[in-house]
Order: sequence, then C-alpha cells, then structure tokens
Amino acid sequence: MGPLDLRRELLDIVGERGATFSPDHQPDDLHDETLHPDPRVPYAVLYPTCTEQVSQIAALASTHGIPVTPRGSGTGLSGGATPVTDGFVVSFARMNQLLRLDTLDHVAVVQPGITLRELGEILAPSGLRYPVYPGELSGSLGGNVNTNAGGMRAVRHGVTRHHVLGLELVLIDGTIVRTGGAVVKSSSGYDLTQLVIGSEGTLAMVTEVTLKLSPTMPHSSTVLVPFRTLEEVTRIVPTIVGSGLEPSMLEYLDVLTMSAISNATNLELGVLASVAEQTAAYLIIVLETRTDHQLADDIAALAFIVEGAGALDVYVLAPTAGTRLIEARERAFWVGKAAGANEIIDVVVPRSSVPTFLREATQIAQRHDAFISGCGHVGDGNVHLSVFLPDEHKRAAMLLELFRFGVDIGCQISGEHGIGRDKQAPYLELTDPTLLDLQRRIKHAFDPSQLLNPYRLLDERQLP
Amino acid sequence: MGPLDLRRELLDIVGERGATFSPDHQPDDLHDETLHPDPRVPYAVLYPTCTEQVSQIAALASTHGIPVTPRGSGTGLSGGATPVTDGFVVSFARMNQLLRLDTLDHVAVVQPGITLRELGEILAPSGLRYPVYPGELSGSLGGNVNTNAGGMRAVRHGVTRHHVLGLELVLIDGTIVRTGGAVVKSSSGYDLTQLVIGSEGTLAMVTEVTLKLSPTMPHSSTVLVPFRTLEEVTRIVPTIVGSGLEPSMLEYLDVLTMSAISNATNLELGVLASVAEQTAAYLIIVLETRTDHQLADDIAALAFIVEGAGALDVYVLAPTAGTRLIEARERAFWVGKAAGANEIIDVVVPRSSVPTFLREATQIAQRHDAFISGCGHVGDGNVHLSVFLPDEHKRAAMLLELFRFGVDIGCQISGEHGIGRDKQAPYLELTDPTLLDLQRRIKHAFDPSQLLNPYRLLDERQLP
Repeated sequence: MGPLDLRRELLDIVGERGATFSPDHQPDDLHDETLHPDPRVPYAVLYPTCTEQVSQIAALASTHGIPVTPRGSGTGLSGGATPVTDGFVVSFARMNQLLRLDTLDHVAVVQPGITLRELGEILAPSGLRYPVYPGELSGSLGGNVNTNAGGMRAVRHGVTRHHVLGLELVLIDGTIVRTGGAVVKSSSGYDLTQLVIGSEGTLAMVTEVTLKLSPTMPHSSTVLVPFRTLEEVTRIVPTIVGSGLEPSMLEYLDVLTMSAISNATNLELGVLASVAEQTAAYLIIVLETRTDHQLADDIAALAFIVEGAGALDVYVLAPTAGTRLIEARERAFWVGKAAGANEIIDVVVPRSSVPTFLREATQIAQRHDAFISGCGHVGDGNVHLSVFLPDEHKRAAMLLELFRFGVDIGCQISGEHGIGRDKQAPYLELTDPTLLDLQRRIKHAFDPSQLLNPYRLLDERQLP
Repeated sequence: MGPLDLRRELLDIVGERGATFSPDHQPDDLHDETLHPDPRVPYAVLYPTCTEQVSQIAALASTHGIPVTPRGSGTGLSGGATPVTDGFVVSFARMNQLLRLDTLDHVAVVQPGITLRELGEILAPSGLRYPVYPGELSGSLGGNVNTNAGGMRAVRHGVTRHHVLGLELVLIDGTIVRTGGAVVKSSSGYDLTQLVIGSEGTLAMVTEVTLKLSPTMPHSSTVLVPFRTLEEVTRIVPTIVGSGLEPSMLEYLDVLTMSAISNATNLELGVLASVAEQTAAYLIIVLETRTDHQLADDIAALAFIVEGAGALDVYVLAPTAGTRLIEARERAFWVGKAAGANEIIDVVVPRSSVPTFLREATQIAQRHDAFISGCGHVGDGNVHLSVFLPDEHKRAAMLLELFRFGVDIGCQISGEHGIGRDKQAPYLELTDPTLLDLQRRIKHAFDPSQLLNPYRLLDERQLP
C-alpha cells in the first residue's frame, strides 16, 4: 500500500476534517510541555471522534507496523507525547465529552480529551467534584490517567489512580476492552485499570474513563505560615499529617519561588515586611470542612501546632487571597520555565526524609555549579525543583547523582510527571534490571511489536 | 531426582521443623474457609522464615514443574488456597513479623504472615492504625493483599489496594523483585504493586508488604437506625455518602441477619419492642472525628437525614454496645455458615442500584426455591448474601442467573472475597473473553508454566 492509499484509508476512518498530514501539522500537536521538546514530524495527526475510529486506526497501524503516539492536550512535562517520525499521532481533542454523570453513585464517565477545567465546570452545579487537582486545568483526563497525575490535593484525596474506577481501552491491534466499572471496589480478576494508569500510553489507548467523584466541602480556608528555615517547614509536616486535621493541601514554597510567583501574578498576601525579611520558606495549608465551626476549630488547632514549631506568624487568608495564592502556586512550573530553568524534577521522597533530601540536593547542586529552587507537595513528599544548569552533560551528571542519592533513601524518580523521555536515562540506570525485565514482559503481553508510544519509559531505542 | 532427594532439598532450605510431608500434614493447612473445601493432599507444606527460603522453594518448584499454592492464615472464602495434589504449599505462618514502623512517615513494613490482630496490637500505642478492616482479624496481611480485602471501613478508607505502597515479591523462578516503596505516590514505571494486589497468588508470592497507616481518630460513635423496609435503608445511602459526613462504616443488616447475629452473640441493643416488630432492616453508621463536639454535630446531622427518610428511631449506642455490634456484624459470615448456608456471595453493585439488585435477587431466589438473607457494606455497594439451596446444580443455575443480572446492571462478581475456585465458573462465563485473554497474557508474562496457584481464577483446568 502506498502513502496515498494510507492517507485515503485514514480519511475514510476519521473523515476529511479528522486528520493532518506531514508536513502540514498544527505545531502544537508536535510536542508536550517538556523543557526539551525535540519535535519530530509524524506522518499523520488523527482526531478520532469515537472509540470505533481509534480501534480502526490502531488496527491499521498494527497491520503496517506504524508507531502510534497518543496525546491528550499536551500538557505533559516529560516528553511522553513527542511524536515519532513518520508515525501516527492520535489526538483525543475531539473526544472530550462527559458521557454520563450519576449524582447518586458519584460517578462520571468521560472521554479522554475532556480537560480538568471542562469537567470542573460541568460538575460544579451538582455539588460534586473530581478531587484530583494537578494544577494545570487545561490538562486532559486521558493524559492524567496515563501519567497518574497527582497535584496539590493528593495529601488528602490521593492521586488519579485513587479516583479512576474503570477504563475503556483500545489495544494496538484494535481490540476494545473494558476494565473495572462504576463500582468502588472489586476483587474479580487482575486490576488492569490500575496497571494502565501511569503506563504513559505504552500499554493501550484510553478511550473512556469512569471517575469516582466526591462531595465538595462547603467551607474552606487557606492558611499561610512563614518559617525561618526550610528545614522547620519540612519538619512540621509529619505532625500536621498525624494530627487528624486532614488538610486538603499541604504545600511548601521556598522564598525564591514565592517571590517569583508573587511577582508573576501581582500577588499581595499581607505578610508583614518584618516577617518577610526573616522568612526562608512558606507552608501553605488548605482546610476544607462540612461546617463553619469545624473550620474555625481546625484553624485554631493548626495554628497551635505551627506556632509551637517556630512559625514566624500565621496568616488566615481572605477567600480571594487564598484562591489567588493557590492559582499562583499552580503557575510555579511556568514561572520556573520563564525564568530559564533547564530541568524540572518531581522526585517523591518518604515524607520525613524531605529535609535530608533537600539538604543533599543543595550540596550536590553547589558541587556541580547548579542552582536549584523549589516548592512541592510536601504533605506527600513530592518535591518539585527547578534546576538551572545549562550544559546538558553537566546537568545529566548532576541529576544522576541527585536521583541516585534519592533512590538510596527510598525516593521514586517521578511522583506525578512520569518518566517519558526526559527521565528515561536515570530511570533505566537506577532501576533494578529484574523490575525492568518484568515490566518489559508486561509491555510485550500488550504490544509485542512495540508500536504504542515507543522510544520512552522502558524502550531505550533512540527516537528516530 | 527421587522423592527422597526432593524431601532432603526442601529440608535443607527450610530446616527440619519447616515442613510437613504427605500424608502427615496439619489438617488446617489443607483448606481455607470456603463452604466447599474439597481438600487435596500436597506433597509438602513448607514454612519458610525468610524471603531467601521462599525464593529457593520457588526455584526448586520451577525446576521440577511442581505446582505451588501460597497461603496466609487460610481465612479466604473462595477456595483460593486449596492445595494441589502432590504440589507444594508455601505457608507464611512463620513469616509474621513487623519489620519496620515509621511513625513520621506513617509506614509499616510487615511480613505477609502477620495477622490483622497482631498488627493492630503492635500499632495501638503509636496512635496510628492500618485502617482496612475486613472483619476477620485472624486474616493475614499477605492474604489480604492477594484478595484485595475490603471490609467495613472501605466506604471512607478504601480497600487494601489503597493502603499498600510497596511489595517484595518472589516470582515462580525464584527471582526476588521489589515494587513501589515507602512513598504515597509514584509515576515511575508500571505499578506492579497494584497489579499483584488482588491477583490471588497467581502472579507472585508476596514476601513483604509496605503499608500506609493513618492516625486513629480519638472520638467515635456507632448509630443504629431501624427502617420498615430494606428499600428505605438502601435508598438513603447515597444521601449519607453525599452529605460530607464521611462515615467510616455504613452497613446494612436485614432483620434475619440481625436476629441471627444477636442471638449468636447475646447482643442487646435496647431497640424498643414496638420498633423492632416494625423493622425489616437496620442501617449501622460509625462516625469518627478529631473532636468530641464535631462528633456531636455529625450525629445530629446524621439523625436529621435519616429521620427525614423514614427511620423508625435513631439509637446512638453506648461505646460498649457499639463495639459489640460491630464485632457481631463481623461474625455474620460464621453465623451464615453455622445456619447451613450453601453459598456466600459478595457482589459489588453501583451503590444506587443496590435496591434493584436486592429486589431481583429475592425474585430469582423464589423462582429457584432458594432462600437468601444478607447484610453488606452498603456504603460501597458490596452486598453479602447467604444463599440456602442445597442442590449443587440448582444452586449453580440460580447463582449464574443472579450474577448475570448483576453484570448486566454494572456489578462485579466479587467485591472483596476474590474469585478463587468457588466463583470461577460464573466469572469465566460472564467476563468478556478479550479481557480474560489479556489477563492470561499477563499471567504468562509472570508464570509461563502455570505453576503458581494453578486451577483457579483464570485457569479453568480441573484441579487434579
């Protein structure tokens, strides 16, 4: 079959407006938000509108041995959606509908292209929400599933995998499979839903997601607590988590990151100048409760805890300021990017080891003439660092040393961004070969020809 | 190698006191708590004391093509631990230690043979707990992992898979692999921890479990609410779950089950005779809070909800009575067994479909001259029914009809007991062949010779 036949077959599947062909692609379809985009030109970018079309595309790719790169809205941070030269990109931009909302069962069934913002707006009147909050609201649910996205509410609500009850999948040979369902538990066979979550598009294409929703709590408050040292901030975290207060967010920002995001967003939080000048890092705590007097109680209990741990002050923010602070915190990645960060990492550390990890990170950075600045979901040990070190080889050496130290104290290389292409080298170097082999056997069970999102995660062949 | 050599090799691995040989086994090692034990005599029951011994046993079994049946404390309900004739049983009875307790990270690392009771007693002084509560406290954590055990607290705290952060595994060829770690999130490769949870011992032997703990809430109350109809009970459940009260248990008992467990345990709850005679079913709600006034608030809000939905009365039980009621509820399975139930099922139903399912179940039972009685974790749609119908073939036909109706409305066949041997026939009949095929490919990736816990779940060969 020649290229013209292939083009014809693809257009027969997705319709005349459902595809672009090389080289006439929309530039945004050719990369995600990695700091190292390294774009490739695929043969076709396809925009299916239903599962059946995805299945036909997969079957065609499979027959002709053509690599397939699935993509959501392209907000990934690890190069997981970078196309393959002459391959297919399957964009889920046109599969972005809410298919079902069940307010009694607290279940929503969505297509993978729906964004967090779209879903949030649809759900708002119901009093229910999808509680996972990765921050980037233009991210798609399908992308969230494939990276097991986390975010600021993970400390209380968990991550994507805790809120996905079932999936519809298209395998690389075109087979359509449903896993799980609209039930909150099951012990009926292997949990393929959980296996596919976080698999970075390498096992199957997700064409439908069944989500578990939660009631939105009516009362909330954002509390900002400045400390003299970053170590004090991270040391108090286990106490807060152990208190039973169940904060829905528990974040830290070093003073540089706070200053950068405040400047970028004209944020004014009312921190006294005399306090600000002594501050090295901030803790941000969001409390959400069913009643207003429970909220008042919880704020008082929280203040008591942090004041006993060296807090310079405790600011219970006005609702508008609280919302703006959280929105500004969401922008930390973009601020880092704009400031010229050369790499963003999201190591996850056993919570009580965060001070040790940050201390060592600072020393490693100094030894390599790098500069690091950060923030993170400190309630669950997920540290985000912007790394400033332009030389690629020096940076790779520095990061490998940092990841190695991390792995030795029980870290995982990525808490929520995924491995993709950007973290592949250290991931493959620092992971037990036996564990890699077992994962490759699973990959083989799903995709023996390695056509589905190749050249990342476990697949160390060089991207052509 | 002759049998004497094999015996010698096994004793060299586990020591002279670490094995029993056919036919001199301890009878309790030859079955679990299925209602249909159908025991087989294995060649050897082995009691390793460390991972290295498990690995050597697996390698030996692999070399000689000998089936291996792992077992925890044998409290499973689906025949998942029934030995294979002339095979090996690997009992984790001697691997029952807490290896590490980290009160800052809220992490416990345990061996698989530790029981829920032992773990609970060790954790109590720390103010932390492992919140999953399958009821049977003599169950082992390894068994809980393999069935993804649920239980009464799942409505708030989730099931086993939500509290296991990492595993150490022994594959059938003796390879030792670690998955996950002491971190609460990760996007670093396929989540093999989640894949193995609920795999019923068919993928790997679990030799170590890293658990996520939670702070124990200091205040709690058990509320008992009688209703005139079972339908009223199940209809109010979505409202309670949607209220934001976050009950830690939300159970129903039909009046027959309540009467049976009350008689079996001499339970006296103070329900007025005039109320009791109108009652068809009870709702049990446990609330747990950080402060006593939040508890009082929550009880008042709960009472308001149920009174508006036809509650005959609201009994806030004294702490002793509350504890005794929950303990009695735990015994429901044993009471059903003692009453001569021929089958126990644990279908999980989309929460709002529980009334529909129970109505249809009653009609199906009537058509088949069967009698059913039940209780269940109604907050998460997990319905437990005792089925009284002695004829095996009639019962299989009735259950297949019931499961088929369930699957059609979105049920899963087992919410927490697992498929094992007892639910294998309907599971294989009612599950999409494509989904079975994909699972079998995964099984093949782990255990190509089908030596690990064969003849159950996906393996339809007849147990020899």
